[in-house]
Amino acid sequence: MKFTVDQIADLIEGTVNGNGATLISNFDKIEEGKSGSISFLSNPKYESFLYQTDASAVIVSKDLALKKPVKTALIRVSDPYLAFTILLQKYQELVENKETGIQVPSYVADSAHISENVFVGRFSLVDAGSQIGKNSQIYDRVSIGKNVTIGCDCTIYPGVVIYKDCIIGNNVVIHANSVIGSDGFGHAPQADGTFISIPQLGKVVIEDDVSIGSNTTIDRATMGSTIIRKGVKIDNLVQIAHNVEIGSNTAIAAQTGISGSTKVGENCLIAGQVGVAGHITIAPKTIVTGQSGVTKSVKTPGRTLGGTPASNNVDFLKRNALIRQLPEFFEKFNQSNK
Amino acid sequence: MKFTVDQIADLIEGTVNGNGATLISNFDKIEEGKSGSISFLSNPKYESFLYQTDASAVIVSKDLALKKPVKTALIRVSDPYLAFTILLQKYQELVENKETGIQVPSYVADSAHISENVFVGRFSLVDAGSQIGKNSQIYDRVSIGKNVTIGCDCTIYPGVVIYKDCIIGNNVVIHANSVIGSDGFGHAPQADGTFISIPQLGKVVIEDDVSIGSNTTIDRATMGSTIIRKGVKIDNLVQIAHNVEIGSNTAIAAQTGISGSTKVGENCLIAGQVGVAGHITIAPKTIVTGQSGVTKSVKTPGRTLGGTPASNNVDFLKRNALIRQLPEFFEKFNQSNK
Amino acid sequence: MKFTVDQIADLIEGTVNGNGATLISNFDKIEEGKSGSISFLSNPKYESFLYQTDASAVIVSKDLALKKPVKTALIRVSDPYLAFTILLQKYQELVENKETGIQVPSYVADSAHISENVFVGRFSLVDAGSQIGKNSQIYDRVSIGKNVTIGCDCTIYPGVVIYKDCIIGNNVVIHANSVIGSDGFGHAPQADGTFISIPQLGKVVIEDDVSIGSNTTIDRATMGSTIIRKGVKIDNLVQIAHNVEIGSNTAIAAQTGISGSTKVGENCLIAGQVGVAGHITIAPKTIVTGQSGVTKSVKTPGRTLGGTPASNNVDFLKRNALIRQLPEFFEKFNQSNK
Repeated sequence: MKFTVDQIADLIEGTVNGNGATLISNFDKIEEGKSGSISFLSNPKYESFLYQTDASAVIVSKDLALKKPVKTALIRVSDPYLAFTILLQKYQELVENKETGIQVPSYVADSAHISENVFVGRFSLVDAGSQIGKNSQIYDRVSIGKNVTIGCDCTIYPGVVIYKDCIIGNNVVIHANSVIGSDGFGHAPQADGTFISIPQLGKVVIEDDVSIGSNTTIDRATMGSTIIRKGVKIDNLVQIAHNVEIGSNTAIAAQTGISGSTKVGENCLIAGQVGVAGHITIAPKTIVTGQSGVTKSVKTPGRTLGGTPASNNVDFLKRNALIRQLPEFFEKFNQSNK
Repeated sequence: MKFTVDQIADLIEGTVNGNGATLISNFDKIEEGKSGSISFLSNPKYESFLYQTDASAVIVSKDLALKKPVKTALIRVSDPYLAFTILLQKYQELVENKETGIQVPSYVADSAHISENVFVGRFSLVDAGSQIGKNSQIYDRVSIGKNVTIGCDCTIYPGVVIYKDCIIGNNVVIHANSVIGSDGFGHAPQADGTFISIPQLGKVVIEDDVSIGSNTTIDRATMGSTIIRKGVKIDNLVQIAHNVEIGSNTAIAAQTGISGSTKVGENCLIAGQVGVAGHITIAPKTIVTGQSGVTKSVKTPGRTLGGTPASNNVDFLKRNALIRQLPEFFEKFNQSNK
Repeated sequence: MKFTVDQIADLIEGTVNGNGATLISNFDKIEEGKSGSISFLSNPKYESFLYQTDASAVIVSKDLALKKPVKTALIRVSDPYLAFTILLQKYQELVENKETGIQVPSYVADSAHISENVFVGRFSLVDAGSQIGKNSQIYDRVSIGKNVTIGCDCTIYPGVVIYKDCIIGNNVVIHANSVIGSDGFGHAPQADGTFISIPQLGKVVIEDDVSIGSNTTIDRATMGSTIIRKGVKIDNLVQIAHNVEIGSNTAIAAQTGISGSTKVGENCLIAGQVGVAGHITIAPKTIVTGQSGVTKSVKTPGRTLGGTPASNNVDFLKRNALIRQLPEFFEKFNQSNK
């Protein structure tokens, strides 16, 4: 598909400098821009690429003052990154050929309710008592257990397993091979060293606008619900244990694990490979840096934490700097104490 | 389903204080108890909730001396947590409508042997030479390779893959999308920088009463067997490498990895995100705290380890406390050495 | 299957000492050698086992000077480990009964192209516009999206999901339940705390001779390609984020994560549970030890790094040793400053 620079400027409410008739057929990063592609400049660090790029058009800030001449067409907007994202979204909607209908073979129980414009892919199952809201896309090889509710406009990729009784909101995306509602890790140790497994009778509730990566696991509650609030974004290979609650608009990067019964506040940013202990509360707007281990509740909102056990990240970095000075320091000490 | 407090007391061999005719239809934590639900009090820390709870019944210790009047019915037993767990189990058995039979479409090879009362779900495969013991439930979309043996009373959830030749005992639970018997990571580096992949000809042996979480991976041995002993409990997203042996009744929390050829003793507790190096031995009853890295064999049983490289946890915590004092300490030192 | 020691020596171009007519039917490690099995001795550390083993034959170096008599037959070669690996490979080829053909039920789109000698297992899908090269084995329950290209001699195990547009080279192995081409974790934060998800329009390119473990995730690029170069070996539960490039012949152990847009050089060895930050470059032949966190670009090739944030591993180990001396040191300091 090809569009002119003028057509694109119309879509994103921008103003054109240069040749509005230029044809665009592709997207590129500004440093890799090729003829026929459109790019964007948001971070001033990359401004030098603007004067070199072979991209045919670049979306820039309406306030950008050029330091040199450019050979590319410019589309000026108030937020170039947002405008570019919207452009990508519109493009995706155009090329994405949404299918509907129930493919054969698949299994939809008689008592399941499938709304209009739903797609159910081959070798997928929707078990008894489950409901799929309108416009939702259930790809191939998905298992939806008994009495599961899935809202409207959801996308569930191949291999996802949703255990019985779980509730999924509207506009939720779950990537391939993630598991929602498997049993929490609850095994009570007995005097003889064996365990009795505690039945996990609760469920998982995922609210609207949540996005979940691939091969992620979210366990059902022992009693009650594990809850993922509205707008949460979860990456790949993340572990969310039983009875956890993740506050709205919190983002959790890959390979992080949240232990049982912990409550993470809203608008937190948790980097990759972080561990969060069980039965604690993390205040809203907390930022946790990569590989940290949060062992205690965080009461004040808006702190940035680092290290294991996690503390203020600035203190953690300072202590790291001092640890690096230890060899020299020991040397000095030993000399002054000879 | 509803039961009276008296009926429940009979089930768990308890004594009723209060109205035995009260109807119970749900389970709750004591701090979230609602009318119509039953809860339990095990940890004395939560005793204050007993006097406030809206739960209709609470299971308590036979020895509990009340400090205030309660409005809830009490069921007195010798071990409230165990009694509540047993109650949950009995409830689960009642509501769980175990299906049997081989669903269509699925694939069971002619030479496979399916015992009585087995369930094989849709889009599942049981390949040539494999055996499924009686009462086992193979959910939908499970792949069971050639010559696999699965014991009695097992539950294998959707998306699980069991590679050829693996042996699974009785009463084993494997949650969704876990992989048993994929190739160990064995690639021999060559002089030119490339690798030759070493065939992984062994298998995985999982003994009775083992429970495995979702998206966990257990690799087959190069030669011989990777062995998970009786009663082991493994959480989600855990990695067990080739030729590892996990001792009986050991519990391993989420996102932990055990490297190749390591032997973990029995009755160990390994927390989440722990790494254990290859070719080492961990003594029985070792406790490893979260995110630790165990790099050397642990010879004395019953130690608690922390940190990377892991050492006695108490020493690790002490060193952490000293590290936190480093800024103040450096300051002092510099002043006294001016 | 049984072979004589002479037949095996022929296969691996070795010389026999002892009874060449002895029958071999199994493989064992030298310390576990049983009658009827063959083993090998490569690491001199294990030489003592040579004089005790019950293995019927052992592959040893042509230069090995015996210190005691042995009861086992010897096959002398120039590289015992390599010879043993080749023997395992030849055995595997013999016992592996490669199937061909498209099993029923499965789904192959009309516009998909399946080359000769391909196997497509039951409940697998090859969607529109995709191509499978000759001799490739697509096991059961695999999802291959639209316009995917898979080369020759590949093995794709059950449960693997390959999203649309991805390109897989020749002789690639992907183990069960791994996901290739799911969306990168790109969500732009908005002023009101919500996120706008950035469409991930790129793809994943995997070159020849790559091996990928089970439950691993490799995300598609936002624009352009996430690239896994020739000969890379990736273990289980590894996360490769969007726009990453992994250089040829690099090996990455289990549970490691590489963040977005990072370039890892060729011939690197990255141990398990390592985290690598985004937007950095790792020089060729870098070695990263287990659980380390690499936060900055590594410019000099061939370094060995440890710790978080990662530094020269030798320095990291020295600092750890000094940290262990801190309690004693604080004590000394306090006494000398009383």
